Amino acid sequence: MVYVSRKEHFNAAHKLYNPNWSEEKNKEVFGPCANANWHGHNFELIVTVKGQPDPETGFVVDLKKLSTLVRDLVIDKLDHKNLNLDVDFLQGKMASCEILVMEIWKILAPALKTITERGELHSLKLYETPRNFVEYFGE
Amino acid sequence: MVYVSRKEHFNAAHKLYNPNWSEEKNKEVFGPCANANWHGHNFELIVTVKGQPDPETGFVVDLKKLSTLVRDLVIDKLDHKNLNLDVDFLQGKMASCEILVMEIWKILAPALKTITERGELHSLKLYETPRNFVEYFGE
Amino acid sequence: MVYVSRKEHFNAAHKLYNPNWSEEKNKEVFGPCANANWHGHNFELIVTVKGQPDPETGFVVDLKKLSTLVRDLVIDKLDHKNLNLDVDFLQGKMASCEILVMEIWKILAPALKTITERGELHSLKLYETPRNFVEYFGE
Amino acid sequence: MVYVSRKEHFNAAHKLYNPNWSEEKNKEVFGPCANANWHGHNFELIVTVKGQPDPETGFVVDLKKLSTLVRDLVIDKLDHKNLNLDVDFLQGKMASCEILVMEIWKILAPALKTITERGELHSLKLYETPRNFVEYFGE
Amino acid sequence: MVYVSRKEHFNAAHKLYNPNWSEEKNKEVFGPCANANWHGHNFELIVTVKGQPDPETGFVVDLKKLSTLVRDLVIDKLDHKNLNLDVDFLQGKMASCEILVMEIWKILAPALKTITERGELHSLKLYETPRNFVEYFGE
Amino acid sequence: MVYVSRKEHFNAAHKLYNPNWSEEKNKEVFGPCANANWHGHNFELIVTVKGQPDPETGFVVDLKKLSTLVRDLVIDKLDHKNLNLDVDFLQGKMASCEILVMEIWKILAPALKTITERGELHSLKLYETPRNFVEYFGE
Repeated sequence: MVYVSRKEHFNAAHKLYNPNWSEEKNKEVFGPCANANWHGHNFELIVTVKGQPDPETGFVVDLKKLSTLVRDLVIDKLDHKNLNLDVDFLQGKMASCEILVMEIWKILAPALKTITERGELHSLKLYETPRNFVEYFGE
Repeated sequence: MVYVSRKEHFNAAHKLYNPNWSEEKNKEVFGPCANANWHGHNFELIVTVKGQPDPETGFVVDLKKLSTLVRDLVIDKLDHKNLNLDVDFLQGKMASCEILVMEIWKILAPALKTITERGELHSLKLYETPRNFVEYFGE
Repeated sequence: MVYVSRKEHFNAAHKLYNPNWSEEKNKEVFGPCANANWHGHNFELIVTVKGQPDPETGFVVDLKKLSTLVRDLVIDKLDHKNLNLDVDFLQGKMASCEILVMEIWKILAPALKTITERGELHSLKLYETPRNFVEYFGE
Repeated sequence: MVYVSRKEHFNAAHKLYNPNWSEEKNKEVFGPCANANWHGHNFELIVTVKGQPDPETGFVVDLKKLSTLVRDLVIDKLDHKNLNLDVDFLQGKMASCEILVMEIWKILAPALKTITERGELHSLKLYETPRNFVEYFGE
Repeated sequence: MVYVSRKEHFNAAHKLYNPNWSEEKNKEVFGPCANANWHGHNFELIVTVKGQPDPETGFVVDLKKLSTLVRDLVIDKLDHKNLNLDVDFLQGKMASCEILVMEIWKILAPALKTITERGELHSLKLYETPRNFVEYFGE
Repeated sequence: MVYVSRKEHFNAAHKLYNPNWSEEKNKEVFGPCANANWHGHNFELIVTVKGQPDPETGFVVDLKKLSTLVRDLVIDKLDHKNLNLDVDFLQGKMASCEILVMEIWKILAPALKTITERGELHSLKLYETPRNFVEYFGE
């Protein structure tokens, strides 16, 4: 079993904001992250696939195909977008990294089957800043 | 003459958008950077001060004082903010890195005198992403 | 289960030195790391907390609270300090990264309960240099 | 149990190329990575050893000895070399990161015993670029 | 005058080798960099353009156009290539970073006029590794 | 004229401390940087040499020779040392980056002549942390 990773990036606006709460409670809980007019980040997403390499290619998964899949299904929906307003799969959910990474998993885990028979999704790691990041293993 | 630098960071939303133009022209010129609902970045700002070190302290400028000055006058106005909507010194101007760095110069160049007699502002370098950045020397 | 991480840093002096050994044996085992007059590093500490995100906040743990906790209990005791001489929780122990990370665990694992009901300490990763680092999972 | 890591680097040429296939099939599967005249990378290799620290030294393994071992047995055979042509332990194998990391394991796992009684090889992480990397845990 | 920069990357093989010299002299002067079977790097190229920002766009040069120009005229000829064998504009020249950056200047300086009236090429910075790099200002 | 750079690193302890001042004044001016028991950093030193490349080698200066020179004359005196106590060329001087970089210039500028006829020292850049650094051009 080898773990193969590809890092992609996207630049997006968001705010941490619970629409069921008052403006005051949002400010109290989320501080400057609740700024009404948004703020933003350069996000980095690391997608890790595990499996046995094919001896004919040396690949668990073709990283160019993985990059294309991640860009088509995830990055294109997030890059230069507002995570709270513009992203169909985040509608009605908190636009936090923790929730975002769980939603990306739901998209990528089944889609991986279209590009590899050997590999399965192992983890997603999402950097909001170089100092704040989350990781998810699907459960 | 020694050149002394301090790097600070801020996370902000913005869009590239000229309010005198139609939505179509904005899209045509700025592409995804004109997304109506904003996008954002982790910006890094490097402030460089030049001067002769004081032999008593070894300092051109006390970097803790420089950091405090830059945070008080610049970072606090930009961090977790929307560059187009929330920043007084960008009102009526394009929220591009090129314009932003010139406006920051106007604030920091005179303010430096309050923390150092020896040092003067040499340059400002602003990273929007690790791959896109601008530098300004005051003229 | 989502794994949420915060990176903090501190600058400290130390030496690798066993006081039960002769100077010669210390030099032989630790080489330049045993320099009597110390050396130092820019350390980076990554604290990882695991748990289920709260659907109301999207948080396993509030990263601002985590940052404050780590700074108050750990970083303030290590930053701009001598690890062999100035740190109460390292008295009588080797000031190596391996020992340091195990001692930090003893402080942070119980203290986390004061800021989150959902999250528990998963790992500590400590970089002494970008090329030398250790990780600890509590056992 | 503490996990101790050392990062080493090497610069090498390679191509992805299966000699049992036609030039056309190689181009089709591997694209520009199959360029007949090779391409190359700055590779980074992270070697992680796990074990209980020795209370006398604070070490699971002496990182200087680990660095020397990795350089002598692995880096010296890869640095400024052609992975397809110059490396004895890759003869007849695909020169992909996935295969390379598995072959390095076969060399380092037994050799570690010569420098530590406490530590055993835990993982190898190999960066081909900052965006493409693989990890292997020995099975 | 604002200095605007874009960083691009390419992965290439090369060797330092003077065909007018014996194999021995090449080995003596260039050491492992003269390895007959090549080695390679992840190169990073920073292109800096200087000029006055257009108040209508905030741009000295549209960075997307700059990126496209650099990729079309330079990166596509270097990426996943052999600098000694595959690159038309390096034929008969040493494939060192110093020579490469001077040849890239000859291509980009005039071509910039096709994408900006305000900006002119200021510098090219080429990283062979994070520790070895060159910069050129056109004379 | 091409500018060629080599980055080297060293790990050292120091404190900012003026022996002509009281302990109180040192604490007041230098804050935690004056900690009596020292602190330390992973320093990075970038040495830049300028000159015309030799068409026979493509070199302004052989970077391996430059690396060896910088290690022999500078790094070996600083690495795993105490800048205030252990370094002959800093005796009686403030152990600040500003002073250090000026003293390194005095050593390297004349010594460069021993390894290159074409190149001369252009600048020294010294990182104390990724956020604090100084640069010196020799006057």
